[in-house]
Amino acid sequence: MRIDLLTLFPTMCEAVLGESIIGRARKAGYVTIECHDIRAFSKDKHRHVDDYPYGGGVGMIMQPGPIFDCFADLCGHLRARPHLVYLTPQGKRFNQQTALRFSQLDNLCLLCGHYEGVDERVLTEIVDEEISLGDFVLTGGELPALCVADAVARLLPGVLAGEESWREESIASGLLEYPQYTRPPVYHGKAVPEVLLGGHHAHIMDFRREAALTRTVSRRPDLLETAELTKKDQIFLRALSEKQKRATAGT
Amino acid sequence: MRIDLLTLFPTMCEAVLGESIIGRARKAGYVTIECHDIRAFSKDKHRHVDDYPYGGGVGMIMQPGPIFDCFADLCGHLRARPHLVYLTPQGKRFNQQTALRFSQLDNLCLLCGHYEGVDERVLTEIVDEEISLGDFVLTGGELPALCVADAVARLLPGVLAGEESWREESIASGLLEYPQYTRPPVYHGKAVPEVLLGGHHAHIMDFRREAALTRTVSRRPDLLETAELTKKDQIFLRALSEKQKRATAGT
Repeated sequence: MRIDLLTLFPTMCEAVLGESIIGRARKAGYVTIECHDIRAFSKDKHRHVDDYPYGGGVGMIMQPGPIFDCFADLCGHLRARPHLVYLTPQGKRFNQQTALRFSQLDNLCLLCGHYEGVDERVLTEIVDEEISLGDFVLTGGELPALCVADAVARLLPGVLAGEESWREESIASGLLEYPQYTRPPVYHGKAVPEVLLGGHHAHIMDFRREAALTRTVSRRPDLLETAELTKKDQIFLRALSEKQKRATAGT
Repeated sequence: MRIDLLTLFPTMCEAVLGESIIGRARKAGYVTIECHDIRAFSKDKHRHVDDYPYGGGVGMIMQPGPIFDCFADLCGHLRARPHLVYLTPQGKRFNQQTALRFSQLDNLCLLCGHYEGVDERVLTEIVDEEISLGDFVLTGGELPALCVADAVARLLPGVLAGEESWREESIASGLLEYPQYTRPPVYHGKAVPEVLLGGHHAHIMDFRREAALTRTVSRRPDLLETAELTKKDQIFLRALSEKQKRATAGT
């Protein structure tokens, strides 16, 4: 799979994408990620890529020309038209399902806005999908694009290996993650739960599943509506609910 | 305000925080952001900071010691205990209200996990709050921490200025943003809406408000429940709803 980023800050994006797990996966050829400088497609002698908004208002808007030309240049180079995603708080919320869908594409292109946003004609004419990381405002689309690239790349075969986990933790499993512990067995007077130190596999599995269910109930009960629950899970959840009711009644 | 990041990838974080608007704001002294290398606090001769999970399973867990020591070192240096936030899909969803709350702190510290997560004793003993960017899985907490740092820093006085906007766009205003246009007036045969080219301020205001309402209705109707709507907005929304009903009935 190939992921392309269109940005005003290719060096910054490259610094992130060159490190850690994704950097290693790129070097090993499990994923191709390239960053393209939109500013290189400015026809202005001062290399401007933005201008004042029509109708007035503060802030600057990214002009359509450099973005169109940067994307056209990429399409020519790829001899294909990648799926073009624009990162904006106005888009559809990004989640693990979207990451999985993107990971099945051959080509994904992420357009990073800056300043007050991009000219609407870019969005209506060439952008296939608008994606939001959440209800908050950032100085640009680079960090959301890097999050999307990271979430997608780690799903590709070969990218996670060895010391990293193949398991789809947290959200991806439908429940929140159970607590994890490593050495030392006692730290600052706090001991690792006894059951994890023994070798009884079934007890460990039960402990972890119940801890994951308990945490999900208290923090993200909405996830239980879609999580795959066994009969045993349902019995545990009923008992937990009874216990909580008694605790509330007792106070 | 001062923001500190505890991470295994300080160089990568520094590369992001040194650029663009946040980089400029740091140089100008509007915000202090420092990155601290958790690995520097390893007592292992190979500088390991992770180990196998108790109870078995794939993946590696970050050990409590280096994180505790890194945080204690920071507290000593600051002569204060910053609000410590851990980035994890298990946390409370980050949004603009949280960004605003964090921007009122003197000291915010962001702990970035890597590998399979951190030892639970870190979370229960020193972490004040767990924050999630959304229901997706990344290779580490660095990108979410950088998003939080960016969203918080841009709210501080002096950080956004000149060509950037003070206005709280999109989500922050309670509605999605209206479309924006800049030069040229016609691009690829697509013209900027006529009303924006004239100088009639009230008409421009109406056009933008109605465009923001229309977009919010179609993409994020949930936002209308909490948005501040004028009487004029409500009349427009009723007319829009009637129009959509007629369009549906006509098909």
